[in-house]
Amino acid sequence: MSSCTATYRLYDDKADFRKKAESIAVGMTVGSWTELPQAKRESMQKHLGQVLQVDVHEPEGAQPGERFADVTIAYPDVNFSKDIPALLVTVFGKISMDGRIKLTKLGFSDDYLSSFPGPKYGIQGIRDILGVHDRPMLMSIFKSVIGLNIDELRDQFTKQALGGVDLIKDDEILFENELTPIEKRVEVCLKAAEAASRETGKKLLYAANLTGRTSSLKSQALKAIDAGANALLFNVLSYGYDVLHELSSDPEITVPIAAHPALAGAYYPSQHYGISASVLLGQLMRLAGADLVLFPSPYGSVTMPREENMAIRDELITSTLPIRTSMPVPSAGIHPGLVPLILRDFGQDVVVNAGGGIHGHPMGTEAGGRAFVQAIEAAQRGIRLAEYADATHPELKAALEAWGGER
Amino acid sequence: MSSCTATYRLYDDKADFRKKAESIAVGMTVGSWTELPQAKRESMQKHLGQVLQVDVHEPEGAQPGERFADVTIAYPDVNFSKDIPALLVTVFGKISMDGRIKLTKLGFSDDYLSSFPGPKYGIQGIRDILGVHDRPMLMSIFKSVIGLNIDELRDQFTKQALGGVDLIKDDEILFENELTPIEKRVEVCLKAAEAASRETGKKLLYAANLTGRTSSLKSQALKAIDAGANALLFNVLSYGYDVLHELSSDPEITVPIAAHPALAGAYYPSQHYGISASVLLGQLMRLAGADLVLFPSPYGSVTMPREENMAIRDELITSTLPIRTSMPVPSAGIHPGLVPLILRDFGQDVVVNAGGGIHGHPMGTEAGGRAFVQAIEAAQRGIRLAEYADATHPELKAALEAWGGER
Repeated sequence: MSSCTATYRLYDDKADFRKKAESIAVGMTVGSWTELPQAKRESMQKHLGQVLQVDVHEPEGAQPGERFADVTIAYPDVNFSKDIPALLVTVFGKISMDGRIKLTKLGFSDDYLSSFPGPKYGIQGIRDILGVHDRPMLMSIFKSVIGLNIDELRDQFTKQALGGVDLIKDDEILFENELTPIEKRVEVCLKAAEAASRETGKKLLYAANLTGRTSSLKSQALKAIDAGANALLFNVLSYGYDVLHELSSDPEITVPIAAHPALAGAYYPSQHYGISASVLLGQLMRLAGADLVLFPSPYGSVTMPREENMAIRDELITSTLPIRTSMPVPSAGIHPGLVPLILRDFGQDVVVNAGGGIHGHPMGTEAGGRAFVQAIEAAQRGIRLAEYADATHPELKAALEAWGGER
Repeated sequence: MSSCTATYRLYDDKADFRKKAESIAVGMTVGSWTELPQAKRESMQKHLGQVLQVDVHEPEGAQPGERFADVTIAYPDVNFSKDIPALLVTVFGKISMDGRIKLTKLGFSDDYLSSFPGPKYGIQGIRDILGVHDRPMLMSIFKSVIGLNIDELRDQFTKQALGGVDLIKDDEILFENELTPIEKRVEVCLKAAEAASRETGKKLLYAANLTGRTSSLKSQALKAIDAGANALLFNVLSYGYDVLHELSSDPEITVPIAAHPALAGAYYPSQHYGISASVLLGQLMRLAGADLVLFPSPYGSVTMPREENMAIRDELITSTLPIRTSMPVPSAGIHPGLVPLILRDFGQDVVVNAGGGIHGHPMGTEAGGRAFVQAIEAAQRGIRLAEYADATHPELKAALEAWGGER
């Protein structure tokens, strides 16, 4: 019997967690069991949820609120269709509202996975497009773009591009507007990217923010692609994972999609409720086909604990799934002094993503990009940043002075 | 300047909440302000978020974790498109991940509202369809339907219909399946509804669960409507509000839509994070066009505090919006003895919705419906249930004995 699994952390000071687990397994599948006549049980057996594991954590002298159990339940695939809304409603629909319970892990059967082509490009595909195979990549973020006209946007794009970044992403709060509609900004920015490439010798992806009504997203994406777009940014959680799944698996959408974590904080930060970041921004984003996934880094002001970051990363790159990997993009609070630490935490397959750490550079946006490029060079060559920040690398030197050195 | 507003509850033991509010108002709109040259400020003024209110709650002797502020910020409409994903990303995208913050209320401008036709039927429309204008309505829920074949489904439907309920809803975990595909179960159940109507003299709505891939939902809905469907059930949160908005405003979808709260517990129960139930299941469901909205009642085992229920109700029926009202459907743990209390809490405009309280009746499902009908009659006539539960109302009597009497 093929099943998907869900692991929950249940908090309760005195519950019989085994009994609670059984009641979830029955209640979220066949509804009732012990009352069923034997003949009926035989026909319903293939629909019945199964408790796979119950680990009770009850430390000596546990304070009220500290007792919990990690419970894993198998949900037969035959009960639900092979899409993310059906899985989420099956494993966390009604019980999300039933006391202190957090969804901490999913397990996908091969049968379920057969509906998910996964990321169209993934880490390898993005590396191939950019021709960058031997180092982490560098992304910068448009800042303060609301109200900018197309010339101001081009100007900001050019400065970022000349700094030597590999990717530039729209601000996620830039929606369709008269000043900079998506096809116009794609056209103008990609032209600026070509000009910058002639100076830097680097290719560049520009992730334009895909917005609007759900049924118009595909035509918006095609409009952007027709205008030359080579990547898209998408606020997945405001639309639903299935919308990303449909976009990413559409053969006409021929560019990588970067998933923005906007709204994710409505789900993951509570200890007792919601959905863990590793499910939300790790497992489900990759399953739905995100080529790059942004999430709050453990380094800056908008932070997520390091172990949660590592759990997201693990889900994005694990080779246990038969789909492509997704590129981790830890974001917020990133400055050049953090580059060696980011590489220690994430390895080579990471996008170093900076906003203020590029635009706020004392020598300007372009220098901000260069400082990161130099920090990555140094880290790749095993040279301490402080040492590399000599007279030939004034941008790195200024960055380390502004934000602090290697950690 | 036309703006939408968002109110947040921010928790912090020592923050300057006014400063924090200013930083949200600037950070989520124009990005920076004090650094801008005067000329730029003039052009950006119309995009700048405004702090409307900061109420700090700091009781004498507040314990750590108890200090909070309710902060309201106005977001100029010019910054975002008139759809729910854009509003949510604007007001709660990035900041949802920035510390202890909960979104507790939204305010919609007339300009923003102009994109939202709202519920197509609403309370009045549903009353008109059913011809029920002088009493609360009664809904029953299919139970344990996974694995049932079409004859078993018809049988369960008939028993519910004969009990005299006004609406019957699918189980939200019933997805497309070979045994009971939507067009088949609509056909069979609606035929059973007609037969039952001849006995009960009552009209009946059957809300069939609309499931599948996002882009196929409309065709699924039309398939169901072609087969005779007179209502739909939809797991809104697993798809996104914009999908409901598109379905409800589609002129071809000519039946009421009931919004199921599956997954809502991933957002609302935490004190410090997420989105309040009154926003999630009240304001946004009505804005997106739900004709009926289910939510956990304050009465049963899967409970929500009464004040949160009242806040949802207020948002569903408030006359301050220029769109139709949505019918409140408090659900879970409802038995006939609770009817007078439900009517005291919700008034006449409520659907009394029961699953176990109907199917678990000692005399069977049909009697379970009758017991509720009798409880509603008694409450309407101002007669105590215990008094009404005489020999002429044996079903009510048995229900009160099984689950307890009037509260």
